[in-house]
Amino acid sequence: MTRIAVVAGDGIGPEVVTQARKVIDAVLPGVEATGYDLGAARYHRTGEVLPDSVLTELAGHDAILLGAVGDPTVPPGVLERGLLLKLRFAFDQYVNLRPSRLWPGVTGPLATVKPGEVDLVVVREGTEGLYAGAGGSLHRDTAAEVATEESLNTRHGVERVIRDAFARAGRRERRKVTLVHKTNVLTHAGSLWARAFAAVAAEHPDVTTEYQHVDAAAMFLVTQPQRYDVVVTDNLFGDILTDIAAAVTGGIGLAASGCINPEGRYPSMFEPVHGSAPDIAGKGVADPVAAVLSAALLLEQLGHADAASRVTEAVASELANRAPGVPLRTDEVGDRLAEYAAG
Amino acid sequence: MTRIAVVAGDGIGPEVVTQARKVIDAVLPGVEATGYDLGAARYHRTGEVLPDSVLTELAGHDAILLGAVGDPTVPPGVLERGLLLKLRFAFDQYVNLRPSRLWPGVTGPLATVKPGEVDLVVVREGTEGLYAGAGGSLHRDTAAEVATEESLNTRHGVERVIRDAFARAGRRERRKVTLVHKTNVLTHAGSLWARAFAAVAAEHPDVTTEYQHVDAAAMFLVTQPQRYDVVVTDNLFGDILTDIAAAVTGGIGLAASGCINPEGRYPSMFEPVHGSAPDIAGKGVADPVAAVLSAALLLEQLGHADAASRVTEAVASELANRAPGVPLRTDEVGDRLAEYAAG
Ligand SMILES: CC(C)[C@H](C(=O)O)[C@@H](O)C(=O)O
Ligand SMILES: CC(C)[C@H](C(=O)O)[C@@H](O)C(=O)O
Repeated sequence: MTRIAVVAGDGIGPEVVTQARKVIDAVLPGVEATGYDLGAARYHRTGEVLPDSVLTELAGHDAILLGAVGDPTVPPGVLERGLLLKLRFAFDQYVNLRPSRLWPGVTGPLATVKPGEVDLVVVREGTEGLYAGAGGSLHRDTAAEVATEESLNTRHGVERVIRDAFARAGRRERRKVTLVHKTNVLTHAGSLWARAFAAVAAEHPDVTTEYQHVDAAAMFLVTQPQRYDVVVTDNLFGDILTDIAAAVTGGIGLAASGCINPEGRYPSMFEPVHGSAPDIAGKGVADPVAAVLSAALLLEQLGHADAASRVTEAVASELANRAPGVPLRTDEVGDRLAEYAAG
Repeated sequence: MTRIAVVAGDGIGPEVVTQARKVIDAVLPGVEATGYDLGAARYHRTGEVLPDSVLTELAGHDAILLGAVGDPTVPPGVLERGLLLKLRFAFDQYVNLRPSRLWPGVTGPLATVKPGEVDLVVVREGTEGLYAGAGGSLHRDTAAEVATEESLNTRHGVERVIRDAFARAGRRERRKVTLVHKTNVLTHAGSLWARAFAAVAAEHPDVTTEYQHVDAAAMFLVTQPQRYDVVVTDNLFGDILTDIAAAVTGGIGLAASGCINPEGRYPSMFEPVHGSAPDIAGKGVADPVAAVLSAALLLEQLGHADAASRVTEAVASELANRAPGVPLRTDEVGDRLAEYAAG
């Protein structure tokens, strides 16, 4: 019996998660889903972000499906550090997986790229780097104020995510891994990443490798996104690069992500890259595709490769058949996807 | 008498700098230019990167014009930290100015943006953040290795670059400043930037302001670059965002930059964003436009606004009249630009 914790969250979160659950039920009947009320609404109501008891309960599930949390009324950092990042760190979700495809039927912003030509996945480190929360400030609110942020990188943490990237590349057609860092400026962390990458690469003679500085990679994602297969990079660079990759493949409305603990010691978490979009919440017009693609990553991670590809195919068919300019209805898209995926 | 130090550098550096000097001579006769041999070639020949005596000599000039330094044969970091960053830090060049325009005649990669619609400038902090060189590693080359990089941010350093951005915005038509950071994760530095920004904004009621997280800004630079006027951000974010801005406006072949010490206590430095491009070096086919636009920034900084606009107009005319598909000759472009700018 598969047990999923569902954090619908705020804004459009509940709307898109409902569709993702519909689709999961269609391809894998009998999943037990338990809802957890977390996010801006709960924070405002109770002052709580992620009580320890909830963290413990979440740990008992096979995976977490998350809609979107956040609202402009919550001070920056509260839900990010207290909920999203806390879950990523507590559950050692060191692989932050973000695939980007330019699907047939989708118009991207690039004149130079045709649908079907972009199919890349960013393997972003999820538990280290500048996200470690190491930093502070002195003499706050005076002219002498200094504030620091520290990027922490361990051989342990870097090597394991690079291993995951090579394993994924080995299962893909082009078998290519691009390391992205900024070794010419961040020489200490950069050297650690480069040496760990070289060591793992030596074990995978069948995988092609390349290295790019983050500024060059940001540029090439715009001018030649076709060149990438698997990209492995640190937490912050991955945050930025995956939003560029999403932008060039039709927007974060289509972008899925998984925060994965590959060993399965802790639950992995799956969420659309988009936020809670308060401006369109409650109108039933949010595109659930990113949430549904995140559900496909969830199914894949839990070993249901077949169910996952049916969901992916449903999305491909949905996108290929969308008439341009026709506004979508969240629940209708969900119904169509569930029906197609059910077969 | 204006005294300029010229660091032609490696690869295509000397070729494009020759054109930039031609254009400067055409609009401001009598500039005294002294060449300094720095870069990969000198490093290989003598092991020296930037001798103290040269640093002292450079300090005696009004500005530095730099072509490009670097070569794949030099280990990462040597010339970056030892030369480029050393100059930026030693000469307190805290404003790293990077304008991006989609010039009429230039085909960018975006289907959604028309020439003339993008005209933004990134004011990147140049002397702090993750570029400070604060970091280290322990247990190197063992499974226990840890490597750190520290971002250092001072109220002094942050406020002065924000002031520069607002001053620039006040002289532009749209008068808008966008602060880009990652306040929801980098809470200490983010808070310092946000508070300094709010304080300076309060002194400029005529300037519109907005804030964006760096991942969102990276995305919007691809989907709606038109929305930006002046962007102010930290050193590393600026590095990444300016390459995206260059990519969407036709590539780093056209992108100029200035490392500016606004008070003029030290010489400012002007350089194209592109590198030494060893693959096309010596063939006379490199586009000198980025170097020439950097020369325009130099003229502007030294108070020759009129000469600067003549150079910019020459570039506009050159780009508007380029026949698509016709290969360019570096020296011919330089001749045309010099002739046009001379009037
Ligand atoms: C909300 C924020 C903490 C998060 C991140 O920076 O990782 C988001 O941007 C993402 O990409 O998932
Ligand atoms: C070469 C490197 C040190 C430099 C930087 O990171 O600032 C370059 O990328 C730039 O943008 O000028």
